[in-house]
Amino acid sequence: MEIGRELNAASRQRIEASFARQGLMGLLGARLLRVETGLVTIALPFRPEVTQQHGYFHAGGSSTIADTAGGYAAMTLFPPDSSVLTVEFKLNLIRPAQGQRLEATGRVIKPGRTLTICQLDVWGVTDDGRTHCATGLQTLIRVAGET
Amino acid sequence: MEIGRELNAASRQRIEASFARQGLMGLLGARLLRVETGLVTIALPFRPEVTQQHGYFHAGGSSTIADTAGGYAAMTLFPPDSSVLTVEFKLNLIRPAQGQRLEATGRVIKPGRTLTICQLDVWGVTDDGRTHCATGLQTLIRVAGET
Amino acid sequence: MEIGRELNAASRQRIEASFARQGLMGLLGARLLRVETGLVTIALPFRPEVTQQHGYFHAGGSSTIADTAGGYAAMTLFPPDSSVLTVEFKLNLIRPAQGQRLEATGRVIKPGRTLTICQLDVWGVTDDGRTHCATGLQTLIRVAGET
Amino acid sequence: MEIGRELNAASRQRIEASFARQGLMGLLGARLLRVETGLVTIALPFRPEVTQQHGYFHAGGSSTIADTAGGYAAMTLFPPDSSVLTVEFKLNLIRPAQGQRLEATGRVIKPGRTLTICQLDVWGVTDDGRTHCATGLQTLIRVAGET
Repeated sequence: MEIGRELNAASRQRIEASFARQGLMGLLGARLLRVETGLVTIALPFRPEVTQQHGYFHAGGSSTIADTAGGYAAMTLFPPDSSVLTVEFKLNLIRPAQGQRLEATGRVIKPGRTLTICQLDVWGVTDDGRTHCATGLQTLIRVAGET
Repeated sequence: MEIGRELNAASRQRIEASFARQGLMGLLGARLLRVETGLVTIALPFRPEVTQQHGYFHAGGSSTIADTAGGYAAMTLFPPDSSVLTVEFKLNLIRPAQGQRLEATGRVIKPGRTLTICQLDVWGVTDDGRTHCATGLQTLIRVAGET
Repeated sequence: MEIGRELNAASRQRIEASFARQGLMGLLGARLLRVETGLVTIALPFRPEVTQQHGYFHAGGSSTIADTAGGYAAMTLFPPDSSVLTVEFKLNLIRPAQGQRLEATGRVIKPGRTLTICQLDVWGVTDDGRTHCATGLQTLIRVAGET
Repeated sequence: MEIGRELNAASRQRIEASFARQGLMGLLGARLLRVETGLVTIALPFRPEVTQQHGYFHAGGSSTIADTAGGYAAMTLFPPDSSVLTVEFKLNLIRPAQGQRLEATGRVIKPGRTLTICQLDVWGVTDDGRTHCATGLQTLIRVAGET
């Protein structure tokens, strides 16, 4: 496995189709930005509907797209007849989440037949660059069945 | 401090006003169910817009309302001129999140002048009862300024 | 499964034998205090050899006995031909760990065929009572083979 | 701040002196391997006294040296009159911890006046190379007073 290697078209389509079925991604306005082997990035554009009380991105926005990115990063490594569930994740919110959009990356750091471990990172992105605003770890389990 | 004790009206209003300013709570359709000293519960009604790819509640829905519940649970213990930020949280997703609504409770287990620690729990609720679907821990920091 | 129910003698002996093979428990001077269904408590007596730089119990002492207690709590629920590995754990150190001994309890909050989730708690114990000094969550996986 | 930059002699001595006061480091036979700005590595040589029931390094060994490495990594960034406490840490045990020694590195990923966040990593080291066996995140708080 080589993290970041180009993914075959069938796996990519499988993940795009699964993403499209996630009602919450549509509600938030999140979109798949990058789908590679063991590495997925999701973007969440800023708008008042995704904020907390001070006008920054809500930590729930960060955790939602980070969790989803990690789940699909794991799924890129799975056979077609299997799906993924998040067992647990932990996120440190290290800076205020602000910018034109958030970008969350899930990166597999330990693939496995049963369990996969991902590193999660979230950045606030503006025209001038990006700022690391959250980092975390996620444990996922592969399950047989629908994707 | 007595967890679960009735909260004074001023603190309650302060938290309700802050909750109302969270754009993401409105977008999700989440609402404050219970606000007591060191203990806050938030409900998230089911609808397709809050699901993941298999039709269950998205883990991001659980984590968003759990994080928010814990934040306000901590804030019930703070003086009026201070606010709260999540430092980090960890959530174990122990069962599929399903039901007519989710209910997330944040409960302060260690108050502090600087840091507060909350236990987070999420249940899937139906007419027949409720099922524990996630549990976690959260570290919060008190900051001076707007609530 | 009823957490805290008396454990059968064979399971108890299996756990005591496994504990006795843990070199680190012997080095620390830790001992099994309580072994029940889904619930195990381990004690670590105070001595200078288990301290950090300020003379309190080292957080590593807390985490070591908490991790072990959770592992055996899970193992009480397993068939005899299986063992347990810690997948991950998270611990909040909520008060200084001090006293004549630490007591760490692992309690199964979600048993499973593959994964088991435990709550971990550590107390500092003196003649006058006990103080909650750490709380955490742990994910364990059942593996076939030696115990 | 430049992580990995050479540390001044006074800070280095302060950390070595603090490490020497940790009774548990002596009991385990752990030693400071590398002390740089925001980056500390601690080694734990293998011996039966640091094992779990299957003869591998005990997860408590990994977590103890990882927690300590992160604590001192944070302390390299602090003024002389302040000390550090672990608020919480989370560790994923991704492979069996084995080898001639473990090496744990704490690396500051977010320094702060009050809170510092470290990434923790543990490797099993043999003559042939090293294997990544654990990764984690740690939140630390700076406190005034003795080091």
